[in-house]
Amino acid sequence: MRTFKLTLAYDGTAYAGWQVQPGRPTIQESLETAFETVVGQRVRTIASGRTDAGVHALGQVVSASIQAALSGEALRRALNANLPRDIAVLDVAEVPPDFHAIRHAIRKRYRYQIHDGGVRDVFSLRFAWQYPYGRLDAGAMQRASAALLGCHDFRCFQSSGAERRTTVRTIVDLTVFRNSSNEDGHCGGLGDRRDWITVEVEADGFLYNMVRAIVGTLTEVGRGKQPEHWPAVILATGDRGRAGPTAPPQGLFLVNVTY
Amino acid sequence: MRTFKLTLAYDGTAYAGWQVQPGRPTIQESLETAFETVVGQRVRTIASGRTDAGVHALGQVVSASIQAALSGEALRRALNANLPRDIAVLDVAEVPPDFHAIRHAIRKRYRYQIHDGGVRDVFSLRFAWQYPYGRLDAGAMQRASAALLGCHDFRCFQSSGAERRTTVRTIVDLTVFRNSSNEDGHCGGLGDRRDWITVEVEADGFLYNMVRAIVGTLTEVGRGKQPEHWPAVILATGDRGRAGPTAPPQGLFLVNVTY
Repeated sequence: MRTFKLTLAYDGTAYAGWQVQPGRPTIQESLETAFETVVGQRVRTIASGRTDAGVHALGQVVSASIQAALSGEALRRALNANLPRDIAVLDVAEVPPDFHAIRHAIRKRYRYQIHDGGVRDVFSLRFAWQYPYGRLDAGAMQRASAALLGCHDFRCFQSSGAERRTTVRTIVDLTVFRNSSNEDGHCGGLGDRRDWITVEVEADGFLYNMVRAIVGTLTEVGRGKQPEHWPAVILATGDRGRAGPTAPPQGLFLVNVTY
Repeated sequence: MRTFKLTLAYDGTAYAGWQVQPGRPTIQESLETAFETVVGQRVRTIASGRTDAGVHALGQVVSASIQAALSGEALRRALNANLPRDIAVLDVAEVPPDFHAIRHAIRKRYRYQIHDGGVRDVFSLRFAWQYPYGRLDAGAMQRASAALLGCHDFRCFQSSGAERRTTVRTIVDLTVFRNSSNEDGHCGGLGDRRDWITVEVEADGFLYNMVRAIVGTLTEVGRGKQPEHWPAVILATGDRGRAGPTAPPQGLFLVNVTY
């Protein structure tokens, strides 16, 4: 048996998330089906973490142990030829047999994209929250986010139903910015960059829906409905009912996982 | 009767092009249906030109004459509320009653996006040609494109079946570039900018499929199958069979129309 570490990008729009669910299309099911075609055996894949329905990945990490004489590059090409177009294997590397995509992850980075240009951006309906409540104050959101940096009990920023040993996590980076330049077509994106707000957050781990709860909370500050110290108050009181609404899934990307 | 000039953006993926075709979804049909809901009458809309199935617009211009007391801004909001999500009215301006979106257009600008990063970019499947034949030489494409600048008979760069009074057109700008900076998420687009080539072309008018034929021709130079003087040879011989293949529709955007 050889163990491989795969780096995946996917558009999560058409999927019920990473994890196999009977009767619903998932990323894991698509990947394991492609593996079965390529190596002729059912392969169990393990991702760094689940992504929810409609959530995307720029660099999801997956481990898989297979019996095959393929090189990593040959495996990458063969999987890409057998995966749906909206899932792509960016990289395959052989790793020691004890590599575990969940247990060995030390940090994960997520990005959340918001378009607040007034009129919806028809080219990013799948990849951004088309914010319906007017222009956000990115500076206020950035200042409000500072209270969440560091080691805290984030139980107010998780959706109910998820059981975790501990709800303490350490956020090592949390950045909110309005994209500043209008490059007028000189990059892959379309439209005026200044109509976009990006939230990037990196932590040693995330609770269920934690990034989307943080984004939903920061936007309440950004639209002026809550003061800048509101996230600090939520953290201090520990009351789940106080946090903002959960931002919709289509703006969220798992950017990368550090091992 | 009042005449309005509308600027539209649309993702053309789900549509059989601009123009109404019985039994098929089109941009024009969607817009005229929205007009009917908003102003209670069937309105005939005229676009600066047809866009084909799967082709997009950042700034298509449409004229429409209606009997209504709405302001332009109220009309814009009402139309957006009644259009499919992948079509948006960016701007509405009242214009003199003799304004005609086709006849008064003096220049149009198109953009064509190519992703040649090897692995497909799952986030731009709808908005770029995922080039399957390896890395393109953007410099060679730019140099080859120079022969097409200015006033020429472009009959070799149109698809058959289209009848035009004249096939002479003037290209005032034709630029090919590889996107140079990797902004690492600081703009709406995703992935490495350097995996993208953009072709922008502006002319006093375009023949049927002309931009896609030019792009298909330039990519044959960019992949090294044809020499840099090839476009000049095609122009000189006037032989339709000599031009390159027609590039696929999903990379093409109507950027704007000048009046």
